[in-house]
Amino acid sequence: MTLSCPTIIEEDQVITLAHGSGGKKTSELIEKIFVPAFCNDLHHDGALLNISAQQIVMTTDSYVVQPLFFPGGDIGKLAVTGTLNDLAMCGAKPSYLSCSFIIEEGFLIKDLKRIVASMQREAAENGVQIVTGDTKVIERQTGSNIFINTTGIGISRVKQPIHPHQIQKGDVILLSGDVGRHGMAIMAMRENLEFTRPLLSDCCPLFPQVEPLFPLEVHCLRDLTRGGLATALVELAESSTMEFRVSEEAIPVSQPVASACEILGLDPLYVANEGRFIAILPAQNGQKALELIDGSTLIGEVVEAKGAPRAILKNGFGTHRFLYRMVGEQLPRIC
Amino acid sequence: MTLSCPTIIEEDQVITLAHGSGGKKTSELIEKIFVPAFCNDLHHDGALLNISAQQIVMTTDSYVVQPLFFPGGDIGKLAVTGTLNDLAMCGAKPSYLSCSFIIEEGFLIKDLKRIVASMQREAAENGVQIVTGDTKVIERQTGSNIFINTTGIGISRVKQPIHPHQIQKGDVILLSGDVGRHGMAIMAMRENLEFTRPLLSDCCPLFPQVEPLFPLEVHCLRDLTRGGLATALVELAESSTMEFRVSEEAIPVSQPVASACEILGLDPLYVANEGRFIAILPAQNGQKALELIDGSTLIGEVVEAKGAPRAILKNGFGTHRFLYRMVGEQLPRIC
Repeated sequence: MTLSCPTIIEEDQVITLAHGSGGKKTSELIEKIFVPAFCNDLHHDGALLNISAQQIVMTTDSYVVQPLFFPGGDIGKLAVTGTLNDLAMCGAKPSYLSCSFIIEEGFLIKDLKRIVASMQREAAENGVQIVTGDTKVIERQTGSNIFINTTGIGISRVKQPIHPHQIQKGDVILLSGDVGRHGMAIMAMRENLEFTRPLLSDCCPLFPQVEPLFPLEVHCLRDLTRGGLATALVELAESSTMEFRVSEEAIPVSQPVASACEILGLDPLYVANEGRFIAILPAQNGQKALELIDGSTLIGEVVEAKGAPRAILKNGFGTHRFLYRMVGEQLPRIC
Repeated sequence: MTLSCPTIIEEDQVITLAHGSGGKKTSELIEKIFVPAFCNDLHHDGALLNISAQQIVMTTDSYVVQPLFFPGGDIGKLAVTGTLNDLAMCGAKPSYLSCSFIIEEGFLIKDLKRIVASMQREAAENGVQIVTGDTKVIERQTGSNIFINTTGIGISRVKQPIHPHQIQKGDVILLSGDVGRHGMAIMAMRENLEFTRPLLSDCCPLFPQVEPLFPLEVHCLRDLTRGGLATALVELAESSTMEFRVSEEAIPVSQPVASACEILGLDPLYVANEGRFIAILPAQNGQKALELIDGSTLIGEVVEAKGAPRAILKNGFGTHRFLYRMVGEQLPRIC
């Protein structure tokens, strides 16, 4: 029983500033769209969590990707998997997510519903609950912008911390699959590149892949998002004050990604991924890790840094080049 | 030791898309601005929290307020206190915050620094750590937009849940102070209204005020943000399926707020606050609560709803009016 008549939010409606007022329209949005999708007990103020562990991991990410819908995913799927993946990279099993929307006036309700459904599907498939949220509405610019923040809580599943400081000389570097799919799927869409087979984003949850690695004394995990594989390697080399030696030939790049990169003049090692990671672990466990992850390769090793820590790429001709962090911006709003 | 030369981020610089690339410029922003302000051990991937409690509360809010700096606060102070207040309203002592920025290309670094300093000051004063974060950069529109998400984790400090379902007939409704300051401070600035004494936002942390109420069997707490006092009363009446009877004369409205509301044709009961709350508690503890909170008043009581649950306002002439949730949008981007 409520004072206000129930209003149906029609698919052809758009978001208005009133949906961000905190008043009647905000309640409608919550009751008609968010609660049915996410949780019958969704709390817009705060959710009480039942966690009986002492080792909790917290992570946050905001998603601003454009276009919102792309081959292999959408901003909703990305907003859930991206944050879950950050938890996985810390050795934590994802448990709860909060979810906060900033939506432009004029945004289509049907697009919002599609995004929310995608978030819910992804959360459910990963056994995660979206427990609390928020909605703000900003003035119309293009009418097609939505920004989503998700913050994740997970329970640590590792005995030793997974951290760059744990990396040791002699460790091997495992790459979980081919690189550059997410960035090139977005870029190809923006540039209207066509392929005989569509180039799909690699956007996917990584906890199922990394969990079996935990007993193998994995020292460090890092998902390869903005800045790509190269930036991740440089960052970890620097944080661990080690030298990373990586073989370029060992890094899988699919034919469509390689072609698209060539056309657009991009280096696939710097292109963003949303479903790939590197694991750094003791050499004696490298082979076992390789067998656990389909499509993975051992791409290099960690050695003591004689000078400054660095990541070095050896190519097929036997020559070496230093890797650097990405300078400038390759693909704005890639995630 | 790093491969890249350390670069100083100058105050007169602006945010560029490269600051959101995940590469060198993103690292600079983190190392030069966020780490020194927030935490020497700030984790951009995920933070391990030491929590030994079972009752954890999680809440999230995004802040889009304009103007960014206003009398009595700024978006940074608001982003910290607003989320801490949501935890307090759930009976939880705030412990940790995540913080995620979406910044427009062209945004002034000096403004970012001012906002970050304000966040840090507010977090420190409330004994809260900002432990993890994220930064995205979007294309320039006006160059003056920044959106901040904070997600908070707190530890429950109450034995019985604080929830609208706990509200009982016979309870009294306590209002913690005068209403409408935050909304009118923002509005006055937007409309260039001048006062002999500046109208300051009421933006402030509420946990110190609500903590002493916990032993008084407080049934429900609600901070009065978007939609103001009136919307909060209607929402709580509906959620608890009770009738709220409130005396208009008992609701304090300061002279400058009343004047500004009159000029702009607004009802102060619907104007947003950022440092006011209502507490609903057993009548026998009303007087004690009143003594604990400076400036508070008892504004009404909870009775059984004979028909639909509702909130009724009795004015000085003895007539009654029903309160409704705010319809439409009074002040976009108020928080």
